[in-house]
Amino acid sequence: MSSLCDTAFDPRAFRRALGNFATGVTVVTAATEDGRKVGVTANSFNSVSLDPPLILWSIDKRSSSHEVFEVASHFAVNVLAADQIDLSNNFARPKEDRFAEIEYTAGEGGAPVFADCSARFHCEKYQQVDGGDHWIMIGKVVAFDDFGRSPLLYHQGAYSMVLPHTRMTMREEGQSPSSHFQGRLSHNLYYLMTQALRVYQASYQPRQLSTGLRTSEARMLMVLENDAGLNLCDLQREVAMPVREIEEAVANLKRKGLVTDEGERIRLTVKGIDETEGLWAIAREQQDKVFGQFGEAQVEHFKTVLKGVIKGA
Amino acid sequence: MSSLCDTAFDPRAFRRALGNFATGVTVVTAATEDGRKVGVTANSFNSVSLDPPLILWSIDKRSSSHEVFEVASHFAVNVLAADQIDLSNNFARPKEDRFAEIEYTAGEGGAPVFADCSARFHCEKYQQVDGGDHWIMIGKVVAFDDFGRSPLLYHQGAYSMVLPHTRMTMREEGQSPSSHFQGRLSHNLYYLMTQALRVYQASYQPRQLSTGLRTSEARMLMVLENDAGLNLCDLQREVAMPVREIEEAVANLKRKGLVTDEGERIRLTVKGIDETEGLWAIAREQQDKVFGQFGEAQVEHFKTVLKGVIKGA
Repeated sequence: MSSLCDTAFDPRAFRRALGNFATGVTVVTAATEDGRKVGVTANSFNSVSLDPPLILWSIDKRSSSHEVFEVASHFAVNVLAADQIDLSNNFARPKEDRFAEIEYTAGEGGAPVFADCSARFHCEKYQQVDGGDHWIMIGKVVAFDDFGRSPLLYHQGAYSMVLPHTRMTMREEGQSPSSHFQGRLSHNLYYLMTQALRVYQASYQPRQLSTGLRTSEARMLMVLENDAGLNLCDLQREVAMPVREIEEAVANLKRKGLVTDEGERIRLTVKGIDETEGLWAIAREQQDKVFGQFGEAQVEHFKTVLKGVIKGA
Repeated sequence: MSSLCDTAFDPRAFRRALGNFATGVTVVTAATEDGRKVGVTANSFNSVSLDPPLILWSIDKRSSSHEVFEVASHFAVNVLAADQIDLSNNFARPKEDRFAEIEYTAGEGGAPVFADCSARFHCEKYQQVDGGDHWIMIGKVVAFDDFGRSPLLYHQGAYSMVLPHTRMTMREEGQSPSSHFQGRLSHNLYYLMTQALRVYQASYQPRQLSTGLRTSEARMLMVLENDAGLNLCDLQREVAMPVREIEEAVANLKRKGLVTDEGERIRLTVKGIDETEGLWAIAREQQDKVFGQFGEAQVEHFKTVLKGVIKGA
């Protein structure tokens, strides 16, 4: 059942297991009175208490940004929206001046806050708790902004988005709708697209996972098929993963002998090419299984409409 | 910019703002030596430290389950998969014996663990920190299981799922693909469905939010259009929200004069019917805007294929 390890276990495997818990993405910021500013990307944010209003997040004890959080009276938690990947990446990697090309305003205690987030929490420092190799930072919320925008997600090392999880059941063809609502719903294309994608995903994902690769690693191999090979920068653009996760995924794929370095570029090995062909075969079989019930012309029409939606919505 | 509130602010508005941070859903369990078992649904789980391996979550100080967590040497964190809504609901509401109809096995220290999760963390109790109206429970992970299954999400009071966030750009029609990969990708229907849904969602959601209703409240109104009215149990089945959130959303819609009680059943008021018609109008306008570029027959074909995928994948 469970892999018991009383002693220290593989930190990579542990981090990977933790990655199954999906979270939003925040950038936590602070400023000192003399104007030093810090910002770190964190997904360890969570609510603690309503009365008093407390939230927490944690920061690596080795982070140089901790100095400023130590001194500052306040910090701000910016909960990122789905289109703020660049902001997340900006505060996730070591950089000379992370605020150089970023627009922000000063929140409580001068902590930088960003526009177009999902929400923002302005906090007074409340308590700092020792948490092994991290500090657990507890803040008392003194003000907040609720913008409600669709959030950026972090799951299994890759950025993701929220897909509604409606349970509402489709009526059978020919069966009359149990309500006016279900009747309308069965003509709503957004609802139908959501349902179709959910059903497709549910049957496809286990097959892809059975290769032993996470979705993000599989996606990386499929991207690397590009004959020229890609450098880390290109990869970051193509696979929607944070740098640290890309480096870890590349290291993992190297250990498996699936990719190799060629100067700055990462390339598939011969074994990697075989594995990638296997992934495409799974994708193709799934597609054939689901769409085999339709004629070729019908599938082409379907594809045309999808492409039109992508271009025109 | 931000609504400054030095004094206590509306806890409902605060909880609502916190709901913008999307999280996975866990059921945390423990057992005493004499066999008393507890399980609580929690989305406050998060990782803290790799060395030593620490995680945390928090529990309401008023929760009767805390007694057992206080005494037990271990607890287990079950990270729920997308199809485990019933398990989440089971441990989220007050109930005589929450384990009565649930299958489980005993993990470390006897803490109940469930099959078919995304991941499980078996923890030794490490530390308990005062966190206002909650206890912050810190556990040292002694073993874990990584099943990698697609997770259940919790966002803005409703259950959701993960939608891949690929950045990979579509080539323009007529432009040759920059790589063999992009060439293949533009024929992959799963990828195209994902992209289409993302684009549609991005332009639809802000219009729905502009009504001042969250997605989950809008969904509730649309479900309630059913003339007969629905009781809480029906609502829970139809809207994929936890009971507590349903109760809060209903209270909120009542305050706005959009719904009313009729015995056990919740019904739309006249104002509620108008508001709901407005929501359908937004849905219809969005659909017309996006699909207006296609002929009626083409849209019907598209719908037929979607329904086929829903039934047949």
